[in-house]
Amino acid sequence: MTKFLSDNAAAVHPDLWEAMRAADEADNPYDGDALSAQLDERFTDLFGRECAAEWVATGTAANCLALATMCQPHGGVVCHEEAHIEVDEGGAPGFYLHGAKLILCPDGHGGEGAKLTPDSIAAVIDPIRDDVHQVQPHAIAITQASEYGRSYAAEELSALSDFAAARSLGLHMDGARFANAAAFLGGSARDAAHGVDSLAFGFIKNGGMNAEAVVLFDPAQADLVRYRRKRAGHLQCKGRYLAAQILAMLEGDLWLRNARHANAAAQDIAGGCGDRLMHAVEANELFVRLSPAEREALREQGFEFYDWGADAARFVTAWNTREDDAAALGKAIAAL
Amino acid sequence: MTKFLSDNAAAVHPDLWEAMRAADEADNPYDGDALSAQLDERFTDLFGRECAAEWVATGTAANCLALATMCQPHGGVVCHEEAHIEVDEGGAPGFYLHGAKLILCPDGHGGEGAKLTPDSIAAVIDPIRDDVHQVQPHAIAITQASEYGRSYAAEELSALSDFAAARSLGLHMDGARFANAAAFLGGSARDAAHGVDSLAFGFIKNGGMNAEAVVLFDPAQADLVRYRRKRAGHLQCKGRYLAAQILAMLEGDLWLRNARHANAAAQDIAGGCGDRLMHAVEANELFVRLSPAEREALREQGFEFYDWGADAARFVTAWNTREDDAAALGKAIAAL
Amino acid sequence: MTKFLSDNAAAVHPDLWEAMRAADEADNPYDGDALSAQLDERFTDLFGRECAAEWVATGTAANCLALATMCQPHGGVVCHEEAHIEVDEGGAPGFYLHGAKLILCPDGHGGEGAKLTPDSIAAVIDPIRDDVHQVQPHAIAITQASEYGRSYAAEELSALSDFAAARSLGLHMDGARFANAAAFLGGSARDAAHGVDSLAFGFIKNGGMNAEAVVLFDPAQADLVRYRRKRAGHLQCKGRYLAAQILAMLEGDLWLRNARHANAAAQDIAGGCGDRLMHAVEANELFVRLSPAEREALREQGFEFYDWGADAARFVTAWNTREDDAAALGKAIAAL
Amino acid sequence: MTKFLSDNAAAVHPDLWEAMRAADEADNPYDGDALSAQLDERFTDLFGRECAAEWVATGTAANCLALATMCQPHGGVVCHEEAHIEVDEGGAPGFYLHGAKLILCPDGHGGEGAKLTPDSIAAVIDPIRDDVHQVQPHAIAITQASEYGRSYAAEELSALSDFAAARSLGLHMDGARFANAAAFLGGSARDAAHGVDSLAFGFIKNGGMNAEAVVLFDPAQADLVRYRRKRAGHLQCKGRYLAAQILAMLEGDLWLRNARHANAAAQDIAGGCGDRLMHAVEANELFVRLSPAEREALREQGFEFYDWGADAARFVTAWNTREDDAAALGKAIAAL
Repeated sequence: MTKFLSDNAAAVHPDLWEAMRAADEADNPYDGDALSAQLDERFTDLFGRECAAEWVATGTAANCLALATMCQPHGGVVCHEEAHIEVDEGGAPGFYLHGAKLILCPDGHGGEGAKLTPDSIAAVIDPIRDDVHQVQPHAIAITQASEYGRSYAAEELSALSDFAAARSLGLHMDGARFANAAAFLGGSARDAAHGVDSLAFGFIKNGGMNAEAVVLFDPAQADLVRYRRKRAGHLQCKGRYLAAQILAMLEGDLWLRNARHANAAAQDIAGGCGDRLMHAVEANELFVRLSPAEREALREQGFEFYDWGADAARFVTAWNTREDDAAALGKAIAAL
Repeated sequence: MTKFLSDNAAAVHPDLWEAMRAADEADNPYDGDALSAQLDERFTDLFGRECAAEWVATGTAANCLALATMCQPHGGVVCHEEAHIEVDEGGAPGFYLHGAKLILCPDGHGGEGAKLTPDSIAAVIDPIRDDVHQVQPHAIAITQASEYGRSYAAEELSALSDFAAARSLGLHMDGARFANAAAFLGGSARDAAHGVDSLAFGFIKNGGMNAEAVVLFDPAQADLVRYRRKRAGHLQCKGRYLAAQILAMLEGDLWLRNARHANAAAQDIAGGCGDRLMHAVEANELFVRLSPAEREALREQGFEFYDWGADAARFVTAWNTREDDAAALGKAIAAL
Repeated sequence: MTKFLSDNAAAVHPDLWEAMRAADEADNPYDGDALSAQLDERFTDLFGRECAAEWVATGTAANCLALATMCQPHGGVVCHEEAHIEVDEGGAPGFYLHGAKLILCPDGHGGEGAKLTPDSIAAVIDPIRDDVHQVQPHAIAITQASEYGRSYAAEELSALSDFAAARSLGLHMDGARFANAAAFLGGSARDAAHGVDSLAFGFIKNGGMNAEAVVLFDPAQADLVRYRRKRAGHLQCKGRYLAAQILAMLEGDLWLRNARHANAAAQDIAGGCGDRLMHAVEANELFVRLSPAEREALREQGFEFYDWGADAARFVTAWNTREDDAAALGKAIAAL
Repeated sequence: MTKFLSDNAAAVHPDLWEAMRAADEADNPYDGDALSAQLDERFTDLFGRECAAEWVATGTAANCLALATMCQPHGGVVCHEEAHIEVDEGGAPGFYLHGAKLILCPDGHGGEGAKLTPDSIAAVIDPIRDDVHQVQPHAIAITQASEYGRSYAAEELSALSDFAAARSLGLHMDGARFANAAAFLGGSARDAAHGVDSLAFGFIKNGGMNAEAVVLFDPAQADLVRYRRKRAGHLQCKGRYLAAQILAMLEGDLWLRNARHANAAAQDIAGGCGDRLMHAVEANELFVRLSPAEREALREQGFEFYDWGADAARFVTAWNTREDDAAALGKAIAAL
């Protein structure tokens, strides 16, 4: 079987195993260890602007902890109607934000492939402005790359950031596949997170075991996240193993190298898809129009993937997808 | 330096490293993998009564998820006034139980060393019974071993369990050091968890990296915990690494062997403490009366530990405490 | 000015003033007074099935307290996408249900005018069934009369009730204008609440000051609502004034008489609307297609009402709407 | 029967009935009416510093809404261990503050009769400062008059206010019996609320029906309370009846006149108590040492009151306590 189901169950990268083993010697518990202590500086270097960074075991927790810095319980977070936080996190934002509401934004007004624009957001929030009977927005959450594998360029982020500032809204980026977006956009973490207030920087889908980083571009919020992380049962006492994973990922830009590999595999597949592609491939996910019979044919050839509604399929590549497999899938689709 | 600060930062046991590496091959994500699938049965065997078991990354999360099966947001959880859930979890019960109250119970009425008794609980909850202006208890939480290293024998648990049932209260056991208690009580997991409705079975302080088990003796509650675990951002997509840790711990009773080692080291130290001991040593923690000067003297000899108030110290042994070190500490205290 | 803005700011009915004054003599505080003690029995008589009833000051609180008996924090409540609890209660369900999700149902599958059907609900919840990554439904909330002034007949309620039972979902009825629906349906409270598990029985829009009733057809839930009402700061110490309002409403079916008056006024207006009506008028609200110029013309004649989008208006009648005014409005519309 | 049980069930003052009836004419719903619009200015005049004021139906809601402006969900509110918010509000702070913790302060360090001092607070919060494992204080809540009928003089409030500012803590005053305290202290609302950030100004125990005022001395917080009031189901649509009560209370200082009457009655009783008094009588509550036999004797004479533990009783006077009754009780106690 050749799996294109998801990148979320792939093996852990060997460099991370090594880094974790090297952290085995007892150190201070929680985040008081020597490795955790390096995170702020390492991410500040990477992004070229001051930030604080804290590890956490899942993207869901990372998103929610970051959102808690910008949305009060009586507020709302504007997100795409198919955003991961809305349809795939089991109600976690409702929990972490104490009943705050996700204010859903459809495509349109220039937004497509689950990407938001200032206009698509304004269309949703302007009609309820200052209405005490309706939950008011406190923040915006975007996903880089988007739920349909689209990436936000720096100028698009700039427009969103300006809009958010003008409305006094926070701007959070769900970066479960931030590495893939950054790789697609040219390799600059700085540009790929341009203007956002916080980022859930994903490593797990990119070769990690169980460490993501909450990156706060307003370091004054770091304490809030620290206390909330503890309160959510996410302050692991052997946090050094999470810090070790993240530092290994940053070392020599392993995060970018892994993402580039996955993206290249996605492009190999895309090459065989032609008009079947529902969305431009700007990361490591493909949404491909395929009839039930065509999907069946692919599965008989040993390819594993998820159906996407009645007439399409989703394929995801990973840091360890073999080039041959991706090429074979591309050919198999082209041959349908 | 010889550290007796805590067992919570010790290295990961080699068997667990091996088990995690062996789980590296991709499998189904979340808890759909082959290892996670074994947990229910393995714990059912261990406890000799049907149960469901789910991994989670911290004891705080394990306690809170279990308590959520028995305490509604408007209810309360009776616990000792120095219980870990009250003084050491950063308000996590308030978060996970949505504002439920911890109803605090001091020592007395037969309770000592942070152990509760039916009488000590009744003294607190009877005066507020059926008073709509006061939060009513929904559950009881006890700690095995207690915050002062004391263990509940099966008959004590039986009395608490009967009391809880008579009052329609759930009974949860915080087992961060359950292994040490079970080892002290004779090695039967069954007896050490006699009559409780749920158990947060700790492995991290006993050689694990970041996996504890929420054990539910009413398997009908398993789904509630599964949904709440997801909602709390604790459903890791590579859950097989957590399951691997737990299964390795159960294999050949590693959990008991590690605990026996730590307990033996604690007894070695206790041998040198005489009347200085504030509490009977029934697990791997020692609370020892020591003046500031005496503590200073010990530290000069290279021993690390926490002060416990003005006139005492706490020492904790671990699965990898060297026998020589424990013996040396015992002698050093005896020689003061 | 002749106001058809809403029924929610109308004067208090004289009988209720009298009843409140008569309750002035001190009695037991909270709900321990002689008037509050009568509620269970009075509503049991009215509905012909055993129920418990508790006063509360707003419909928002009434809905939320009832929903709390059937939806846990990690669950969801299925409701129409324009339900009052979704668009007009300022996020109260998120607060009272601790982050539970409103699962939105559009018209279609036989549902119209904001009325739900088993099919319209199934279309939304079946695709997410047993998916741990998506919030699962725990309850259904319908509105009687609906947000567009439509009423559910007993057989429609029966179908919904059967569906809810088959899916193990609770069924709540938001009855802010329950009286108007019941009056329209023939005057039987029993039929108008057929099969539901709980009802927020509204009196305020029907001549009350600030008392609604939470009616629980499973009296075993009464205690949960009592404790949660207290916890929400809704247990008024002079609760007898709220009970007095409700009892006065039930006395001699004042609630029905008031509603019939309002409904009759609505029908008078409807008589002049012809094809302009967007929804059948089955209570005391009218949604009427009117161009901006037509609305302007009506306002110049002294009628007050809300725009409903760009090309329509909403008119609401009340217990004290003067017959002449309603007739005049009907004629004015007919003459446009 | 002559009731000294509580002031919380007394009749509504005739002036308030009149004011409510006068508000019967329909006006804008919610808080958009002409009466609600006057509150900010009226309270600003009363306190001599700018403030915003919003009505709400209970003291519990008033306290919790005010506290929500200063305590985040992961924080804590320092209060006396017998504070009303801890022992008498059914867990409402846990609900409104989303699981925030009440950090309890015993008497001592200069605090007595349930009054806090900077030293008594510091003794509780200093040991946990900056400890991520313990909930950190965000606010302080004091009660004026205290739960034992003691009042804070302006200089005491000044010390608390300075302390709170130095620690970056909010300072809230539960003023369920603020009027009685202000009357005792000389009649200045300004002095009786010196330096606090918010006040739950109670009218219900002083002759109101169901209206208290949340007074915010930082008017920038008014919006937060408005949105949270709505979200808590406390935004009544006929809010003008609540505003009418409050305005009638402020008119001609009715609030002070009523309180002075109650306080005088309390002093009349105190005159007969001598050494039996457990606390100085500085408002309208008396805590009096009385054996079971003595209490029985008083009850046989027709006096109603609550036991206060095994060897004491609590007596409360109200705006409508008859002077003869108070004098009679004083004599009866003196004669025991």
